[in-house]
Amino acid sequence: MMAQQKESSSGVEWRIRVGDGSPETLVPQATLASRVWHGLKHKIAKLVLKVWMFLEKAWKLAVDDPRKVIHGLKVGIAITFVSLFYYMRPLYDGVGGNAMWAVMTVVVVFENTVGATLYKCLNRVFGTSLAGLLAIGVHWVASQSGENLEPLIVGVSVFLLASAATFSRFIPTIKARFDYGAMIFILTFSLVTVSGYRMDKLFDMAHQRLSTIVIGTALCILVTTLICPIWAGKELYVLINKNMDKLANSLDGCVSQYFDHSDEKSDSEDKALLGYKCVLNSKATEETMANFARWEPAHGRFNFRHPWKQYLKIGASMRSCAYCIEALNGYINSENQAPEFIKKHLSNTCLRAGSNSSSVIKELAKTIKTMKKSPIIDLLVGEMNSAVQDLQNEFKFLSCLSNSNSPPLEEAATPENKKTEKPQKTTIATIPLMDIISAVTFASLLIEIASRIEAIVEAVEELGHLAKFEAVKVSKKNQPNQKDEHTIKTSQLV
Amino acid sequence: MMAQQKESSSGVEWRIRVGDGSPETLVPQATLASRVWHGLKHKIAKLVLKVWMFLEKAWKLAVDDPRKVIHGLKVGIAITFVSLFYYMRPLYDGVGGNAMWAVMTVVVVFENTVGATLYKCLNRVFGTSLAGLLAIGVHWVASQSGENLEPLIVGVSVFLLASAATFSRFIPTIKARFDYGAMIFILTFSLVTVSGYRMDKLFDMAHQRLSTIVIGTALCILVTTLICPIWAGKELYVLINKNMDKLANSLDGCVSQYFDHSDEKSDSEDKALLGYKCVLNSKATEETMANFARWEPAHGRFNFRHPWKQYLKIGASMRSCAYCIEALNGYINSENQAPEFIKKHLSNTCLRAGSNSSSVIKELAKTIKTMKKSPIIDLLVGEMNSAVQDLQNEFKFLSCLSNSNSPPLEEAATPENKKTEKPQKTTIATIPLMDIISAVTFASLLIEIASRIEAIVEAVEELGHLAKFEAVKVSKKNQPNQKDEHTIKTSQLV
Repeated sequence: MMAQQKESSSGVEWRIRVGDGSPETLVPQATLASRVWHGLKHKIAKLVLKVWMFLEKAWKLAVDDPRKVIHGLKVGIAITFVSLFYYMRPLYDGVGGNAMWAVMTVVVVFENTVGATLYKCLNRVFGTSLAGLLAIGVHWVASQSGENLEPLIVGVSVFLLASAATFSRFIPTIKARFDYGAMIFILTFSLVTVSGYRMDKLFDMAHQRLSTIVIGTALCILVTTLICPIWAGKELYVLINKNMDKLANSLDGCVSQYFDHSDEKSDSEDKALLGYKCVLNSKATEETMANFARWEPAHGRFNFRHPWKQYLKIGASMRSCAYCIEALNGYINSENQAPEFIKKHLSNTCLRAGSNSSSVIKELAKTIKTMKKSPIIDLLVGEMNSAVQDLQNEFKFLSCLSNSNSPPLEEAATPENKKTEKPQKTTIATIPLMDIISAVTFASLLIEIASRIEAIVEAVEELGHLAKFEAVKVSKKNQPNQKDEHTIKTSQLV
Repeated sequence: MMAQQKESSSGVEWRIRVGDGSPETLVPQATLASRVWHGLKHKIAKLVLKVWMFLEKAWKLAVDDPRKVIHGLKVGIAITFVSLFYYMRPLYDGVGGNAMWAVMTVVVVFENTVGATLYKCLNRVFGTSLAGLLAIGVHWVASQSGENLEPLIVGVSVFLLASAATFSRFIPTIKARFDYGAMIFILTFSLVTVSGYRMDKLFDMAHQRLSTIVIGTALCILVTTLICPIWAGKELYVLINKNMDKLANSLDGCVSQYFDHSDEKSDSEDKALLGYKCVLNSKATEETMANFARWEPAHGRFNFRHPWKQYLKIGASMRSCAYCIEALNGYINSENQAPEFIKKHLSNTCLRAGSNSSSVIKELAKTIKTMKKSPIIDLLVGEMNSAVQDLQNEFKFLSCLSNSNSPPLEEAATPENKKTEKPQKTTIATIPLMDIISAVTFASLLIEIASRIEAIVEAVEELGHLAKFEAVKVSKKNQPNQKDEHTIKTSQLV
């Protein structure tokens, strides 16, 4: 704000001086100095504005997610601690000049989530150990084989191992779990092999390096797990949960917006409508989180071997559903809108199919949130399927409408529709068939979405099975007959 | 293979010994030793099998993309070179013990693409310089302020800068361009500040560290650009091109498979059909490549300021099209298939719309490949739109079919359809309306895809404008009137 004012005021000032009709003789006098001065002022103001906007953005980010600030502070604490440890000479005489490795370890290894930090820590420790051992072996062989062969052996071994380890980082299994370890392996191996020639205290060096790294990693692990820990597993869990809610809201919004023609849509509605985009774009995050979650110990409600991979499957099935919502969304703003009364006719059934579908998703989100098997999910799926069935019946009625000279099929007309039917009959003959197509496709996509939601249901049920979700007992009156009835419906329809 | 045989033979051997009916007295005698031995054998065989499978996978990866092997060799060369440089004592006396920084730089900075390597090199050099200067400043202030205050000043400055720099890594603009630089900044700052207390050769140290890093980065840049360079920009370009071809083939495959009921589909057809999945999943790769491509100098046909960001837009518009193909794909294997004669009826128009759409995409791929403006793209878009128009006319005919008691609309029946119309009239009354819905939705999605393809056309045209693609002159007879006619059609339909 301040900077903006500054800029505009300086801009105004400058313009006034140039164009205010002051005697022309003044202009050449002031030209060079004032132009340079004002140009400079302008540039500085621009720079200040840029910096200010950057700071504003940073501030917004910090307010939106204070955990990012906390992460920054955590890193600050860890680095200050390890630096002071190194700084206070008497404390670390055992560790020696190599203590800088401890500082470096903290800087490089400290990540946002506990899982990522653990992944890097373990990779660093094991990579260093393995490379150190191998390097000492190679060094021993080299030192046994005479002065001429020594550089050759060292060079060839560094070349071969560095090439192989670099290539191995492309192999998916290595990339997912040991990418950082492979890099540390190359680093340690070349450093130890090469420096081994000069100092004979090879074991000392390896030992020192390892011990400083262990100090650094231990500090990182302590800080990251004790001060406001961010668990990759929990992040994944929350992400899937949030995305599920977004998907449900998006579906709801999409259907209601198609049938609602009030032009004033609130921003929050628009935002909810586009929630499915988060689902479409979160594949990479999900995979990263699932990868890191594997390294985490039991935390909160999650065991060490919690089936994180299943969340990826749930995510994939949600995305498959989101693709359809994306296609659905294309019809909201399409120019070929169905005439108002057709929409009115379809709206009840479509809205019901949409809200039934989204309540299945919401129930799944609740299942995951509570980690308890849902007692009513079969019921909801049944309701969704019966709504889909109604939608399919609706098509019959629609096709009558589009051919007005044939009598409307009575069984397709729901009570509400019957009322509106007669006064419209005169206009029906003029409906361009193309217009109905858009509505039919919209409804047909809703049906496809319902069938894809069943894939999400299956994936969540598998999660419940793998993670041993508790079953919830319900009072008998809610369940017995309805459930059977609905499972029969489901099997008929699917 | 070898390992598999080994395992099975040892498995068989083991099973025979246990279950071959040899005297029971033998069993307790041999129990412990032989069980341990065979158990061990089994485990070793399993391990060998695993290692073998891993190697097989690695071999396949190497054969599929030899550039990955070349990258490994390049890293090997660079590290060996810098190691030997350090190893040969007389060579580098000017650089001193800090030469290990050169080795470390090469290991850490060398990336697969030129852009990524340059990004890391520049970030490393600038991060180190900036942090070194700041650290010297802080050190000077600290040394002026007495022995008691010194650790406090050092500690507080490390804490503040490390926290701020870590937080800054979350800010999108910093994350995209200076993520690595921020980390290096923290590393150098804490190392220099902390070690500054002990050695008074602070300038020497900073200078040495910087010069070794420059040596390392220079070596990396040389090796990565001179030996089989992999340009991030070109990778992005090739990826977009390939994805475009895949999208076109996928669309073709999808449409033809819907109408073709021969159950024997070749594997290659199935693979082509699923090509759109590559488009769906390549968002992250595209963004990474575009990010790195910015750092690359002019190479091949690309200038330094080639509009890489526009490729992201093209990618996004392709993905939006791929979402629809995904939805389309759902109808291929759906159980509610339209009856054969309905499909036969629709197939000509749908196939034409599909092949016209895919030829637009193929032409766009060609435009990008040749980097020349396409002279016939407007023509092709026009053809696509006229096919879409025919498809829309087809709907009218369809709706007549589904209501057999109304007379078919004559203008919707194309010549081919007229022939098949009469013999079917008797069966028409029995068509369940639901079955037609699937075909209608399929066709309607094709129309939606066509409109999304126009977004790709626009994005590619903008690229042509930004990257100054050459215009190709064509002989006049191809162009003049048709073009006008088609643009009119387009504006009518869209």
